[in-house]
Amino acid sequence: MSAEQLLPRATVLRNFSAGPAILPASVLQRAAEAIHELRLDGHAASAPGVGLSLLEISHRSAAYDAVTKGAEELCHQVLQIPRTHQVLFLQGGASHQFAMVPYNLRRDDRPAAYIDTGVWSDKAIAESRVLGPTEVIASSGPRHDHIPALPAAGTYAGASYLHITTNNTIFGTEWAEIPDAGDTPLVIDCSSHIGSRPLDFERVALGYAGAQKNLGPSGVTLVFIRKDLLSQRPVGPVPTILRYATHAKEPSLYNTPNTFGVLVLKLVLEWMRDLGGLEELARRNQRKADRLYQLLDHSALYRAHARPGSRSSMNVTFTLDGAPEADRDALTKRFLKQAEAAGFDGLKGHRLVGGCRASIYNAFPEEGVDELCAFMSAFERSL
Amino acid sequence: MSAEQLLPRATVLRNFSAGPAILPASVLQRAAEAIHELRLDGHAASAPGVGLSLLEISHRSAAYDAVTKGAEELCHQVLQIPRTHQVLFLQGGASHQFAMVPYNLRRDDRPAAYIDTGVWSDKAIAESRVLGPTEVIASSGPRHDHIPALPAAGTYAGASYLHITTNNTIFGTEWAEIPDAGDTPLVIDCSSHIGSRPLDFERVALGYAGAQKNLGPSGVTLVFIRKDLLSQRPVGPVPTILRYATHAKEPSLYNTPNTFGVLVLKLVLEWMRDLGGLEELARRNQRKADRLYQLLDHSALYRAHARPGSRSSMNVTFTLDGAPEADRDALTKRFLKQAEAAGFDGLKGHRLVGGCRASIYNAFPEEGVDELCAFMSAFERSL
Repeated sequence: MSAEQLLPRATVLRNFSAGPAILPASVLQRAAEAIHELRLDGHAASAPGVGLSLLEISHRSAAYDAVTKGAEELCHQVLQIPRTHQVLFLQGGASHQFAMVPYNLRRDDRPAAYIDTGVWSDKAIAESRVLGPTEVIASSGPRHDHIPALPAAGTYAGASYLHITTNNTIFGTEWAEIPDAGDTPLVIDCSSHIGSRPLDFERVALGYAGAQKNLGPSGVTLVFIRKDLLSQRPVGPVPTILRYATHAKEPSLYNTPNTFGVLVLKLVLEWMRDLGGLEELARRNQRKADRLYQLLDHSALYRAHARPGSRSSMNVTFTLDGAPEADRDALTKRFLKQAEAAGFDGLKGHRLVGGCRASIYNAFPEEGVDELCAFMSAFERSL
Repeated sequence: MSAEQLLPRATVLRNFSAGPAILPASVLQRAAEAIHELRLDGHAASAPGVGLSLLEISHRSAAYDAVTKGAEELCHQVLQIPRTHQVLFLQGGASHQFAMVPYNLRRDDRPAAYIDTGVWSDKAIAESRVLGPTEVIASSGPRHDHIPALPAAGTYAGASYLHITTNNTIFGTEWAEIPDAGDTPLVIDCSSHIGSRPLDFERVALGYAGAQKNLGPSGVTLVFIRKDLLSQRPVGPVPTILRYATHAKEPSLYNTPNTFGVLVLKLVLEWMRDLGGLEELARRNQRKADRLYQLLDHSALYRAHARPGSRSSMNVTFTLDGAPEADRDALTKRFLKQAEAAGFDGLKGHRLVGGCRASIYNAFPEEGVDELCAFMSAFERSL
């Protein structure tokens, strides 16, 4: 019997995809039911049906109004988005927000300030530069293995806004807490950790998140913006569709929304609420991440990419850099191949950085992490 | 027994929603199945499953690649989009294209030319005006009950492009054929009739359509653009995400697409292909529209809003203007209420224009039109 055959297998297919990502089974069940027939309260199986598929009803119907208003309310209740902020469900993902933010929040000729923590913040910075003066006031480069300290207030006090990426999906780093930027409007891309734990959104002027990690399917973007910013006049001409104020007027109904995406987001938020909310999810996520990082830190083979204090509890990035340099690439390939064969799917690191990555979002179960740890330990022992 | 009780009822709930709109039952069934588990060939029930929900898989996976490439190919085969054009699946609906078009297609200081046929073209015109000189070279206003003749070529020959709305969902008018704009790039918003019949897309430089009428659910926009236009340099700074060239490079995968929306679009196109394609759909749609317009034209009570020659086969708009003026509003309300009670849903005209509208997209069955005609005749007789 070969060593490979002795490696422990996952009991069910384990999905470590970075996004679109794993969703709770009960949410998938309800989403499929809504495609057959939307129920007025998605939560109760006994609720009255509307006689039509969710996909077939007008976004201006009373039935859909209950969906979008319900989702909006749950964003306040479950995600703890302050009532001072308008919740919006838009389209185009975080990449689209990279452009919408400078279009809406630039003030006069004040530069926009960005902190560079890797690929996604680089993209946000590039879109800001298309539109006006942009300053990168701190960077985690070139390895992007940590979150830099917030620079002194003087470096960004005159800026239109300060933009940070609070969890970096690709490099696996995460801000331990939302920083206090004082009077400078703080903008956060929190796509890949929103909903994972309580975050101090009181400090945030505008936050955005593609839903396809912790919140739902792809194609819907959650945005929350402090209401006083909605009346701020943009610098230069901005198309109607790109203005937050447009979407806030009749919330998330200026144009036809991704109605299915908003429903699934609502179902996910209900699942989170019923589990015990952010506090309970934070405990679970911490346990999952701790187990993986502990294994990585005690291994002669594996190395965590992110430094302690900057480590993401959602995206655990690691290499096989404990192996002799000449063997690493071949060994990494073998590891990923054997992991996939054993039922661990999506562990390959992002194509831009290589290595490995275990994305363990809210819906990823603790048993799955235990099984991965058992596999990784056995793989190391088999060498 | 009251007259109301004698009115014929629909045999099943009939959905006349203008969009999101009715979808084929077999497509809804397959979409719901894909939420449980994506199959590699969505068409065959015996095809191997990938072990994960469509909602949980990466847009960079081989499984999703087959979905998006398959949908793209079907757009050429079934919708007859020429191979000279790049097909893209974007987000944000037609409203988003109203801004993307001028961003990408304006040339030097040449004005953009628009033909105004109602609400949606008005919105397109407004977004163009935000960005630069815009000329409205013809209008169907104020009643928007017809499609104006294409003005002489001299009126638009120097324009960056000429924009028309080929089917007007709200007023129920439709261009009988795609006009020949010569060397001026013709841009069409064909949201509400694409897929209803063969259309001469060889004449089109860029076309776009929100999917939520004939093609699928909301949240995905079909765009097709003649490939030579992708290398045209935009006037002024344009964010990366708003450039067609960005999305064409690795087609529809620059950022995370609405993966569910693209799958459903693919399923709808397969359904269209299996029915016999655009030619067969055109015959069915013509029969459905003819029955309704014939009833309207022979009624003492109902009046078709659109003039013959400009009538939409997708959105049949009508009033009860045969009634004495003093009674019209009350009678219209009664008609809509009794229709809804009899199982005819979504007949209320757009909130901006009032009256009634029967949207009878591809998936709306001929029997449903027969039942509506029977109801309308009986309602008239009951007065």
